[in-house]
Amino acid sequence: MSLALNTSYLRDFVSPAELEALEPYVETAHRLLHSRSGQGSEFLGWLELGQNRCLEELARIQAAARQIQKDSQVLVVIGIGGSYLGARAALDFLRSPNYNALPKDTPDILFAGNSLSPDALNETLELCKGKDISLNVVSKSGTTIEPALAFRVFRDLVEKKYGKEGARKRIYCTTDKAKGNLKSLADREGYQCFVIPDDVGGRYSVLTPVGLLPIAVAGCDLQALLDGCAAAERAYANPKLSQNDAYRYAAIRNILARKGKVSEVLVSYEPAFVMLGEWYKQLFGESEGKDGKGLYPTSMCFSTDLHSLGQYVQDGSPILFETVLALKRNRRDFYLEPEAEDFDGLNFAAGQNLSAVNHKAFMGTLLAHVQGGVPNLVVEIEDRSEYTFGYLVHFFEKACAMSGYLLGVNPFDQPGVQNYKTNMFALLGKPGFEEQRKQLEQLLSDL
Amino acid sequence: MSLALNTSYLRDFVSPAELEALEPYVETAHRLLHSRSGQGSEFLGWLELGQNRCLEELARIQAAARQIQKDSQVLVVIGIGGSYLGARAALDFLRSPNYNALPKDTPDILFAGNSLSPDALNETLELCKGKDISLNVVSKSGTTIEPALAFRVFRDLVEKKYGKEGARKRIYCTTDKAKGNLKSLADREGYQCFVIPDDVGGRYSVLTPVGLLPIAVAGCDLQALLDGCAAAERAYANPKLSQNDAYRYAAIRNILARKGKVSEVLVSYEPAFVMLGEWYKQLFGESEGKDGKGLYPTSMCFSTDLHSLGQYVQDGSPILFETVLALKRNRRDFYLEPEAEDFDGLNFAAGQNLSAVNHKAFMGTLLAHVQGGVPNLVVEIEDRSEYTFGYLVHFFEKACAMSGYLLGVNPFDQPGVQNYKTNMFALLGKPGFEEQRKQLEQLLSDL
Repeated sequence: MSLALNTSYLRDFVSPAELEALEPYVETAHRLLHSRSGQGSEFLGWLELGQNRCLEELARIQAAARQIQKDSQVLVVIGIGGSYLGARAALDFLRSPNYNALPKDTPDILFAGNSLSPDALNETLELCKGKDISLNVVSKSGTTIEPALAFRVFRDLVEKKYGKEGARKRIYCTTDKAKGNLKSLADREGYQCFVIPDDVGGRYSVLTPVGLLPIAVAGCDLQALLDGCAAAERAYANPKLSQNDAYRYAAIRNILARKGKVSEVLVSYEPAFVMLGEWYKQLFGESEGKDGKGLYPTSMCFSTDLHSLGQYVQDGSPILFETVLALKRNRRDFYLEPEAEDFDGLNFAAGQNLSAVNHKAFMGTLLAHVQGGVPNLVVEIEDRSEYTFGYLVHFFEKACAMSGYLLGVNPFDQPGVQNYKTNMFALLGKPGFEEQRKQLEQLLSDL
Repeated sequence: MSLALNTSYLRDFVSPAELEALEPYVETAHRLLHSRSGQGSEFLGWLELGQNRCLEELARIQAAARQIQKDSQVLVVIGIGGSYLGARAALDFLRSPNYNALPKDTPDILFAGNSLSPDALNETLELCKGKDISLNVVSKSGTTIEPALAFRVFRDLVEKKYGKEGARKRIYCTTDKAKGNLKSLADREGYQCFVIPDDVGGRYSVLTPVGLLPIAVAGCDLQALLDGCAAAERAYANPKLSQNDAYRYAAIRNILARKGKVSEVLVSYEPAFVMLGEWYKQLFGESEGKDGKGLYPTSMCFSTDLHSLGQYVQDGSPILFETVLALKRNRRDFYLEPEAEDFDGLNFAAGQNLSAVNHKAFMGTLLAHVQGGVPNLVVEIEDRSEYTFGYLVHFFEKACAMSGYLLGVNPFDQPGVQNYKTNMFALLGKPGFEEQRKQLEQLLSDL
């Protein structure tokens, strides 16, 4: 088992009868999901990404990755939201948050086009100076403003550096299979393309070419990743709540939300999982945060944040519950030698591996928080392997879909993302937005 | 003015009469604070850190920083919570989140002892390989487990590398002025020491030697930092709510919390401010999250997170309000050239600086969120200078103290942090914790 949901610390917060009461609704939602008849059912391609993998496209991705490893010191991945968070989470989880700084035989990977800050853009350009680079621009339409503006800049850079002909071989587009501005440009210029499936939304796309190309460039095993995902797809296709950890997790979230817990904290004890927390925030926040509903997804890294937010979790407003992502086996352990002099009085913690101390911090915290009235769920995962990551991704995706259906929302749309874009386009003077511009400028001058 | 609080977008959420109603309470809290007669008044040293700076210690810090710049390629800062978040926030804000990766003439700065992850520790050690290093261990007692264990490891490393004599000149201790295990060790071994004042708690300590030494090593101007802080101390010593932005911010937080907003989101549009968000979380979370009370402090970086949590903020549960940290002047701008072909249709956004586009994203988002029912406050800051950072730090600290007093808590203690530590010590078999250990092990076996 790559993953196990441990609900034994939840005893005082959710009774077996409460879970049982949700069983029929979980089965209904399961039917909606698997018969593809619920809301948003045109976006269910992620349900079988592992089992239905396209070997031909995989081979193309791996070939592109080898080419990039051969001819580039830096891969710049240009994308925002679902077009970068999955790859970043995977890179940290499978390799390291220090991936770029550590010695390795694969290229550095930089992420661009995920903000509009000139300071950030200038620095990413500086980090590319004197390096051989390739670009992977990830955008379904090619017109999302952050990545599109960044692509303008980096495309110009590689064309100036390698000429139009040389640049052609260093620009990889992950985009729609047929339409959109980026696809048109790529076809005209002869950039190699990878397909963002029509039936997989951005936040569910990490195991499509969106995430797979950067992950492969970092030297990770794509087959193992998809094997893990496929195993999870089979495990979580079981309609019975009691036999399906993804559904149990979804049902418990639903119960806790109805009891006044308004925010879930995804906790881990590994800095390498911080970006996974960011990915999780988009997955759940965008899927459930609509129609005035939804748990507020947040994350913390312990024991780091026990020294900042620990006080709040323990004794603050009783609005939180925690889902702890507990890692069983670190990449490499660190043995703590006892010290002859013991000046700090910490020899009681030495003579064992650091992971054992970390585990006791985890158990101690769990018990303290549970006793303080904070419900705790534990998601136990085996290791930091590709297989486990693929499994974990599908676990969260399946749980999110179920959770959204139980909440009574469409977990696959994101209507509210448009509001700020419309305003921004209007303020920027985009053709066709003249009326909104006038209204907004009036509004601003009234304030 | 380095900082201005703009409340004009708050019109539909907080009326002038509501603020007025809080005036007498703000004056009461101000009196408690400035006459040092409120709860926790033994920890008010931060009230005048800028005005009461100790020039002699400053000179010693600057000399130590010059020495480290001269003899080290890496400074490892060992600390957790308040003993590292301030320095990290400052480093990102004043220099860059890419500080280590960018070319520069000051040492890399690595942070250790802020988790118990062996993977993280092993990597930090690997990053030190072959480099000349110095250590700055920051701990009031010297017995906090995360930094103390890391200090054992890194002290061993420098002693093996440079010998006991050589190591002596590369270990800098920021600790208590007289007592504690670290102070004893430092005195015995002859390590240079800097003082954590008794009357400044960890989360208020960034402008004490705790933060100042690493900030100086990164090449920043400490006098300007403290000048900014001193200016803010004078500005926010005004007892009148209407004339004191820190107090207005605190009062507004208080009003919004009573209207059912349970979480504040500190928003910025600069990746360089993300760690400031982590610092802010500790400041407010640890100060206010007690007795079952307190706003849940969270943070987001836009436009990045508009593509992940934007949907939730716009349309999810109506439990949030936003405080936007708006930067007026980037370090360096980036001019967007219009493109001849305009394949992505984005020329409407070109022909101007990227900061202007970022600003329109900000205004568009602000209006969208306000129209969606999410109250928005704006904290406008001038630039990314030391002066502004010092000013901003004091703004938040003063607001936090006021906010805590208005909430009816002691903003200067953190009793809940002890619970998990006690459990952890018991599970680790610390002498003196035998009884708790038995209880916890019973509890665990019952689950």
